Parts: sequence; C-alpha cells; structure tokens
Amino acid sequence: MTAEKIPESKNSSPTSERSFAGGIWSPSCPVPSLDKTTIQLAHGGGGRLMQQLIREVFLPLMTGGQPGVAASPPLHDSATINLSQARLAFTTDSYVVRPLFFPGGDIGRLAVYGTVNDLAMAGARPLALATAFILEEGFPLEDLRRILLSMQEAAKNAGVAFVTGDTKVVDRGKGDGVFITTTGIGLIREGVEIGPHRVQPGDAIVVSGDLGRHGIAILSVREGLQFESPVESDCCPLFPQVDAILAAGINVHCLRDLTRGGLASALNEIAADAGVGMELDEAAIPVSEPVAAACELLGLDPIYVACEGRLVAIVPEKEAEKTCEILRQFPGGEAAAVLGRCVAEHPRIVIAKGPWGTDRVIDLLSGEQMPRIC
Amino acid sequence: MTAEKIPESKNSSPTSERSFAGGIWSPSCPVPSLDKTTIQLAHGGGGRLMQQLIREVFLPLMTGGQPGVAASPPLHDSATINLSQARLAFTTDSYVVRPLFFPGGDIGRLAVYGTVNDLAMAGARPLALATAFILEEGFPLEDLRRILLSMQEAAKNAGVAFVTGDTKVVDRGKGDGVFITTTGIGLIREGVEIGPHRVQPGDAIVVSGDLGRHGIAILSVREGLQFESPVESDCCPLFPQVDAILAAGINVHCLRDLTRGGLASALNEIAADAGVGMELDEAAIPVSEPVAAACELLGLDPIYVACEGRLVAIVPEKEAEKTCEILRQFPGGEAAAVLGRCVAEHPRIVIAKGPWGTDRVIDLLSGEQMPRIC
Repeated sequence: MTAEKIPESKNSSPTSERSFAGGIWSPSCPVPSLDKTTIQLAHGGGGRLMQQLIREVFLPLMTGGQPGVAASPPLHDSATINLSQARLAFTTDSYVVRPLFFPGGDIGRLAVYGTVNDLAMAGARPLALATAFILEEGFPLEDLRRILLSMQEAAKNAGVAFVTGDTKVVDRGKGDGVFITTTGIGLIREGVEIGPHRVQPGDAIVVSGDLGRHGIAILSVREGLQFESPVESDCCPLFPQVDAILAAGINVHCLRDLTRGGLASALNEIAADAGVGMELDEAAIPVSEPVAAACELLGLDPIYVACEGRLVAIVPEKEAEKTCEILRQFPGGEAAAVLGRCVAEHPRIVIAKGPWGTDRVIDLLSGEQMPRIC
Repeated sequence: MTAEKIPESKNSSPTSERSFAGGIWSPSCPVPSLDKTTIQLAHGGGGRLMQQLIREVFLPLMTGGQPGVAASPPLHDSATINLSQARLAFTTDSYVVRPLFFPGGDIGRLAVYGTVNDLAMAGARPLALATAFILEEGFPLEDLRRILLSMQEAAKNAGVAFVTGDTKVVDRGKGDGVFITTTGIGLIREGVEIGPHRVQPGDAIVVSGDLGRHGIAILSVREGLQFESPVESDCCPLFPQVDAILAAGINVHCLRDLTRGGLASALNEIAADAGVGMELDEAAIPVSEPVAAACELLGLDPIYVACEGRLVAIVPEKEAEKTCEILRQFPGGEAAAVLGRCVAEHPRIVIAKGPWGTDRVIDLLSGEQMPRIC
C-alpha cells in the first residue's frame, strides 16, 4: 500500500449549506440583547431567548473566520457537503469531563480534538464537525463563551469547521453544567486502509509520546494536588502526525488514540479485534517524571491513565524506527518509542516484560479508574 | 427545477467500516455476562463493564439486521461511507425529552425521526446515523434496552442504519436518566435545492397534517390528564412525504419540520430568513378535536405546540393543491392544508387572519411554553 496525496478538490470542502439547530440558529432574526447572565430553561425553548443565546453567543464564536464554509445560502436544517469522489469517516463522541477547565485544556478543546482524533485514527483529514450542547439551567454564560472560544481555536488548529449544531437546556439538577457531543466527517486518504484486521504477528507497536498527562492533569485539579512541575493535559490534534506518517509511505496497519482506559485498553482492544498477542518491553514505556510521581502518589498505573494527544501505531517491524523518528518531530512526541511487538502466541493477551524477567498480563480494568476524564 | 431520481449507486451506501465508541464497542472481546440491573459509573469507564454493556445491550439492538452495513472489516474509530458523487446533508440533535416514554413514542423513536426529519428538510434521504448516549448512574438497563429497541425499529422504518456510537456515564444526580444525541448524514436528491433563500412573495404555505399531537401527548403524561380520546404523539419519519412531493415534480422552495415552538416558530424563522411576510387563514389551520380541547384546558395555542411528524412546505402557489393531495395520502396527513401565502408586505412578520376580519401577529414566543418536549 502506498499513501497518496489527498486530492485537493474544491468539491470536497463543505461549501453549500450550513445549519444550526434545525433552523433555530438563525442569525437573521432581529432580537434584543441578552440580559441574563446564566442559562435559563427558556434558552432551549425554540423562542426568542434561544435565538438571542445563539446569535450572541454561539454564532459569533462557532462560525467566525473558519475556512471552507460559505456564508450563503442561508441556514437550513442540514449542512450540505459537496463531494466528488471520496471515502468518508464519520464519528461521534459526547464529552462530560469534570472539571470543565483543567491545566492544558477544557471541555471545548477536548470536544474538538477528541473527535478529530477519532477521524485521524481512520487516516481521515477532518472535513466538517457537528456539535450538540446539553446545558443545565443556571450554567454561567461566561463559562459557555469561554468554552466556545476554546472550541473555535481548536477547530482552527485542526483545520476544520463546525457546520451544524444543536442546543438543549435541562432543568437545574438534571445535568452538570454542560455536556457536548461532537460529530465529525473526515475524508480518508486515497489508498489508505487502517484497522485491526490488518494487524499481524511480527508488527511493531509504537507510541507517539509519553503517557498519562491528561488523566493526571484532571486528577490534580479534582484532588487539589500540587506538583513541583505542574502536569498539563496532552490534549492536541493527531492528524498532523498521522498525515506525516502516511506521507512518508509507512504502511500503517492500525492506529488508536489513547483515551479512556489509556494504553492498556487500546492495546487490549486491538489485540482482541486482531486475534494477536502482544509483548511490551515495560522499560520502553515512556512516562514523564511528574506523571510517574503523581501516579505513585495516587496508586495509579500510568498505562491505564488517559491521554488526549497520544496514539499507538501498529506498523511493520522494519518501519518502526522510521515511524518513531517522524513522531518525535512533533511537540509532545519527544518520547515516541517502540514498545514491543505483536505475536502469534497467547492471542488476545497483552504481556509486559519487566526489567528482571518479571512478566505481567496487562488486562483491561474491570471498572472505572477515573470517571469523567473526557 | 425538476426533481430527479436519486441514483441507486451501490457506492452511495455505507459499506466499509463501522465504529462504536472509539473502538470500545468491540464485539470480539470475550466478556462475562452483565450482572447489574442498573447503569454504574464503571459502564462508562472504557473497561470490561463497559464492553459488557455494549456487547449485551447496544450491539445486538443497534446493529442487528440493518440494511447497507457490512459486518467487516472489524470495528474501528470511525465509520466509513463510500460515495461516488453526491451532495450530503449532515445534522445533529440532542434529545432530552421528559418523560422518556409517552403515548405514541419514546426518546429513542424521537432521536431517530427527529434527526432523519432534519435531513428530509434538506431533501435528503438518510444514509447513516451516529448516536451518543449520556447515561446517568442508576438508570435501569431495562429502560435502556427498551429505548434501543425502539431506535432500532425506527431506524428500520426510516431505511437507515446506525454506523457509529458513543456512551458516557455521569454520576447520579448529574444527568436525568438518558440523553441521546443523534447525528445523520443524508444524500440530497440530484437537482434539489431547498432553503429559505428560495422563498418568494406569492408562494403558498402548506402544512402536512393537524398540529400539536406530540406536545399534547407529552403534557398529558406530565400533568396526569385524561382525555376521552387519548392523544398520541405524531412522531414519524417525514422523508417519504418529501420524496413523494419531489418525485411528483413539485418545485419545493422550503421545508421545515414543526418541532420546538411549533408552526409559529417554523414560519417566523422562514419569514425572517427569506425576508418575506406571511398571511395565514386562521380557519385553515388544522387542529384535531382532542388537541383543541386539551389546548383550551391548558391555555395553550396549538400553533405553538410541537409536532414531531409534521412539516410545512413553501411551494409555488399553483402547485399548492397538488402538494396537499400528495400529503393527504400519508397516515396522519388527512388534514394537510394550504394555510396561506408569502407576501411582500410586512416582511419577517407572520399574520393570521381570523374568521371575522380579526388579524393577529403570530410572534415567536419569548421563552419556554413546554420545556423538554424533544
């Protein structure tokens, strides 16, 4: 398989129609200024207050200056994307992270990068995003604005635009501030086929950087922990890395971003889907000093701690070092490493080989190590 | 503009890849049986309990027997849709309706029809759906199953499949049972262009059936009302109606489904976006006997009450009667009627002309008449 350039057809950009909330996000209705400082039930009611909210809060922040979205014809129920010939990736995720703001990111940033990263794991450049908000009555408008700004910035960084959206409001005590669901459509590079079905014994397992920064950043706020060097979330878009690997002609068999359940869950899922075993070199797993210290303090194993800007790539053994070299050129990728390999033995089981010949099985966690980290 | 047949290319069906929850909805991992009867926090944790939930509850109900979805290659982060040449519609909506189950429907049915109806309003046949669940700790599994079954049935009725999904769980007291966000991609009929920008003075305003059944069905449960003839929600898919109108060569200028805020909001939005005025014949607005009685009892105006299976079509005046005739052939469409017309006078203002020469302005509601009806 050779990776080819994505055709830069002007037909493959979202061009014709945008839509926000079933015709409700309509910027052309004249409305008076918002006079509330918190979200009210009426903001979700399809009436004027909702139009105010959208006009004054959502539209300026969600549509301003984003590439590839035409301003006309006017808003309608569905966004239209013109394509000539293409394979699309389509993914959705709800974001319920607590706290909403954390070192290195916030729920809005996460709601963009989390979704574009899922597209990237299929080898897809993000084309268009849809976003749906479930807001709790009483949620501060200022926080909402801050989140929307963050989403706008993140979408710009990821080279993608929001083309449709929705807003609902639930009664006080029936939500938790804000939940965001982001759905993405992506254009898959020609000739690329990525998935667990391509993984085979002998393949190398490569990680794109050090583990666990996101989870520890979240926990540090929740637990009120102070570290000598504060840990920031690794939250970032991963398509540039994927694009670079594919452009270099690496025959990528499988990709997975390391979110809920961390490296351990990602590898277990791939091993199970591919029907292979995996052997990791425990000493090769990259964990930064502050994350390691925090994990020791909290009794956590970093291979289970969530990242939001790291991926694992399964590639042919002979291309592993080249993959690492490419990944190391990206910010946060300094610690990219070959962790081990896929084997025919012990199918579906991931084993880490310790420094003194001590092997351990890296199992899926039964339950919840850290709820609501994304 | 003539409406042409949608090309039945096999390349335009979702075929290549499915994905459920970032690789988490993985049916190939062996897991023991679910032994819980309520949702736990751990069900959202990316570990085994979550895989159990997905394997035993989601996958059998969300993927079984749906057309156009290939079972291989295995699940991956993003669903892939192969297209030859097409214009796509893309829409997202969160559903937070209370109660979850109501006469004539439930949140699951609504979460399918609401989204495919938004696609239909762009003249798009639904191609693929994505769904994201935010579940509250303690939510009964039985209710979840019931909702998923309902979604499966509704998707089958609408001729569409879920191709990707996500699940999050939030702490007890931080959600309200279940919230569902459904995102749809649709294929727009060739040659079709529908939107408020095409609306012009002289156009007729046609409604596809009687108003307000959905809102009254919801309120009747909430308020514990008993009617002589119980009112059931009108919740149904609208693409068949749209397809029939377009197939008959009607030059449809604009479509809008009548959800939150009812007919009044839909018309106000179109009038504002199109820059036209509207004149309705008050006597022509179809409201069934039981809905009228309930509205009188509750002090509601039926033109503000939500439907979930009704649309308004703006068409050239000379095609209005033909449009009505087509709409009347559908269940629930018996009362389809020409309500009035678009005018150059009083732009952006909707006026209803009463039976004794009494005119009234049909304004947007300022706030919330009925929270959480969808």
